[in-house]
Amino acid sequence: MKPVKIGICGLGTVGSGTVNVLQRNAGIIAARAQAPLELVHVGARRDNPACELGATRVSRDIFEVARDPEVEILVELIGGTTVARELVETAIRAGKHVVTANKALIAEFGNEIFALAEEHSVEVRYEAAIAGGIPIVKALREGLAGNRIEWLAGIINGTGNFILTEMRDQGREFADVLAQAQALGYAEADPAFDVEGIDAAHKLVILAAVAFGMPLQFEAVYTEGITQLTPQDVAHARELGYIIKHLGIAKQNGDGVELRVHPTLIPDHLLLADVDGVKNAILVEGNAVGPTLYYGAGAGADATASAIVADLIDLARDCGAGQTGRVPPLGVASSSLRNLPIVPMAQVQTPWYLRMEVEDRPGVLSKVASIFSEQGISIEALIQKAPAQGQTRVSLIVLTNKAAQGSVEQAVGAIEALDSINGKVVRIRVEPLDG
Amino acid sequence: MKPVKIGICGLGTVGSGTVNVLQRNAGIIAARAQAPLELVHVGARRDNPACELGATRVSRDIFEVARDPEVEILVELIGGTTVARELVETAIRAGKHVVTANKALIAEFGNEIFALAEEHSVEVRYEAAIAGGIPIVKALREGLAGNRIEWLAGIINGTGNFILTEMRDQGREFADVLAQAQALGYAEADPAFDVEGIDAAHKLVILAAVAFGMPLQFEAVYTEGITQLTPQDVAHARELGYIIKHLGIAKQNGDGVELRVHPTLIPDHLLLADVDGVKNAILVEGNAVGPTLYYGAGAGADATASAIVADLIDLARDCGAGQTGRVPPLGVASSSLRNLPIVPMAQVQTPWYLRMEVEDRPGVLSKVASIFSEQGISIEALIQKAPAQGQTRVSLIVLTNKAAQGSVEQAVGAIEALDSINGKVVRIRVEPLDG
Repeated sequence: MKPVKIGICGLGTVGSGTVNVLQRNAGIIAARAQAPLELVHVGARRDNPACELGATRVSRDIFEVARDPEVEILVELIGGTTVARELVETAIRAGKHVVTANKALIAEFGNEIFALAEEHSVEVRYEAAIAGGIPIVKALREGLAGNRIEWLAGIINGTGNFILTEMRDQGREFADVLAQAQALGYAEADPAFDVEGIDAAHKLVILAAVAFGMPLQFEAVYTEGITQLTPQDVAHARELGYIIKHLGIAKQNGDGVELRVHPTLIPDHLLLADVDGVKNAILVEGNAVGPTLYYGAGAGADATASAIVADLIDLARDCGAGQTGRVPPLGVASSSLRNLPIVPMAQVQTPWYLRMEVEDRPGVLSKVASIFSEQGISIEALIQKAPAQGQTRVSLIVLTNKAAQGSVEQAVGAIEALDSINGKVVRIRVEPLDG
Repeated sequence: MKPVKIGICGLGTVGSGTVNVLQRNAGIIAARAQAPLELVHVGARRDNPACELGATRVSRDIFEVARDPEVEILVELIGGTTVARELVETAIRAGKHVVTANKALIAEFGNEIFALAEEHSVEVRYEAAIAGGIPIVKALREGLAGNRIEWLAGIINGTGNFILTEMRDQGREFADVLAQAQALGYAEADPAFDVEGIDAAHKLVILAAVAFGMPLQFEAVYTEGITQLTPQDVAHARELGYIIKHLGIAKQNGDGVELRVHPTLIPDHLLLADVDGVKNAILVEGNAVGPTLYYGAGAGADATASAIVADLIDLARDCGAGQTGRVPPLGVASSSLRNLPIVPMAQVQTPWYLRMEVEDRPGVLSKVASIFSEQGISIEALIQKAPAQGQTRVSLIVLTNKAAQGSVEQAVGAIEALDSINGKVVRIRVEPLDG
């Protein structure tokens, strides 16, 4: 069999993991690809002692890989969106297929990159950009292709999920667990990317584009982090039968699409609620298949390499069959992509978890209740905690039925203006995820 | 776009579900397949009021569909292995691709059918044969293609899982829940196929063939049902931190493969342990990706139709790209399939759950312990229940470390021969499923 010739740019954790998986599983990979995958050129500023490159050509200038006539598929693992974009576009212009694990690059510049690839009749694959080794792009684009995808909800940032799991199980504060996550190497020194939901937003916008057949619209994602969550709210949620997860949610809503990343109360009986620690999972609702869930490691050298190699085998299978372009990057031809409008957050309706600290005296509850009633918000459940010894304030926790953000904001404003309320009202969205 | 012309044989629940999904999602399907899927011919002994066939040609003789020159892909949904096999082989000989949901047909005659398809350069797809709408064949054959699959463990019979869930949550007897499952329509009047593990064995052998790149060997699967399970054992297992599930397990073990369906204690912290009711899930361990899990509806008209239509879209994408044979039925070329030996059950090592009813008098425990010790079996945990009022017998529950079935049988034989033991020793395998 004629080998398929691979170039890899970037030899960090994921790059060396990919080299290692290609070597370790070479026999199985060649059998499945029906051709050996031969690593012919690596571009990296420095060697990585974690992998053995043997006789493979190594260039310090990564663009030499993109211009190498021998390379058929370029694997971009340098990260970032400036040099990476230039590298990928150079490779495409040189007629090479591209495999990338770069979620920021695809989320922010995917439309341009896919258009260029189409123009040059090459393919761009990015399974590794979302949820590590979980084959979720393949599931959406092929495995569930017979469905109208109604919505998907994913735990797609392992760091955030680790923090929420620890807060729940140990009753610890956010900042405390974050420090531990940093010490364990799960979180970066600047954790904003993870805990503010930007990383999840990158992944969500890609998932939504594949699920709904629409162009990538990164700037349209509503993003809310987990930094304000308290162990108190995590515990109250649990008492009400809910687990708080930092979810990326994409939903077809009438003729528009909701795209949002925020802390979310989900029912504790859902499998998604049991996904703990650094693991990722995506729950997908199709109009034929109903709910399906995909779970696994969302990061790590080998898990990410698994997705990269799957993309390489897919491309090798295409090349072997003498054709490419079998499945467009977003599952449908670019001419069939739908420019679905994004639903403004003020119009997004969900149930809400609200917590307020109120003075423990007669009449407060009825005032609060009448404010909800004025806004047309009905109450699903309410817990009033007995005051702690010597305290005059109690926590009042309200679970509402579905309500638009606009009405909830009005109600919260009115409640916060009451004399008997102390401080701000905590607001967290609830998602039943029941179809 | 030139339509891809489909024939469907069998218009029962799944057949009519498939017709309905093809109609309901026609626009999305055509966009993803880059061609309309046109249902041109249906073969069925009688009409099904659940679907509207419009102008589609209907034949009472299903073989007319297989011989119809207009049909490009034949969907076999008649079930059974005699007429279905003849139908599928007729279609293949007539140069048609085949999509089937028939697990028995693939498990028992897949090798012959795939060989015939290869000879005639057509494809046979069977995603719907395993775990309904969960795209597990695609995950194993493509999404995880870069991995050596170490093992997989699946809840792949919804009826059995419904029964076990009820036994656990309600403390009910097997026979009692089975009767309810029959009343609900989850179980057939003759439930042996589900509760004795034959259905799961059909699916397991297909999963193993795809995961390990080996021919189908249905006769090699060890199968043990759930009919002997008691609510007592389900409760004891739970006390020890385990949930009992009826699993299909395929594992690479040295140069051989374990293929077995049996009740299994699995740790209650695993996501697989939380899969309840009629749902299915498959946990797959790859040597790069680690554990991944796939969850969803394992049966039902629409869920199964989802998998059938995904296969149709896959084939349409192949046809559109002007080539087929891109991915062989078992993921590798027939010449690359490995004839892996099946490991005899006597050599399969797992931990064990053992329960015995013993006389509550001094010396019994030491006798039992010394029998284990003689067989080189070490004890991981032991519970002795206090005797019920007025009773002289107590339940002794032993959790062993890994031990071969041979040694356990020896030990159990010696224990059952003791005067102080009443009746048989209950034996259930334990699987930590931890890598």
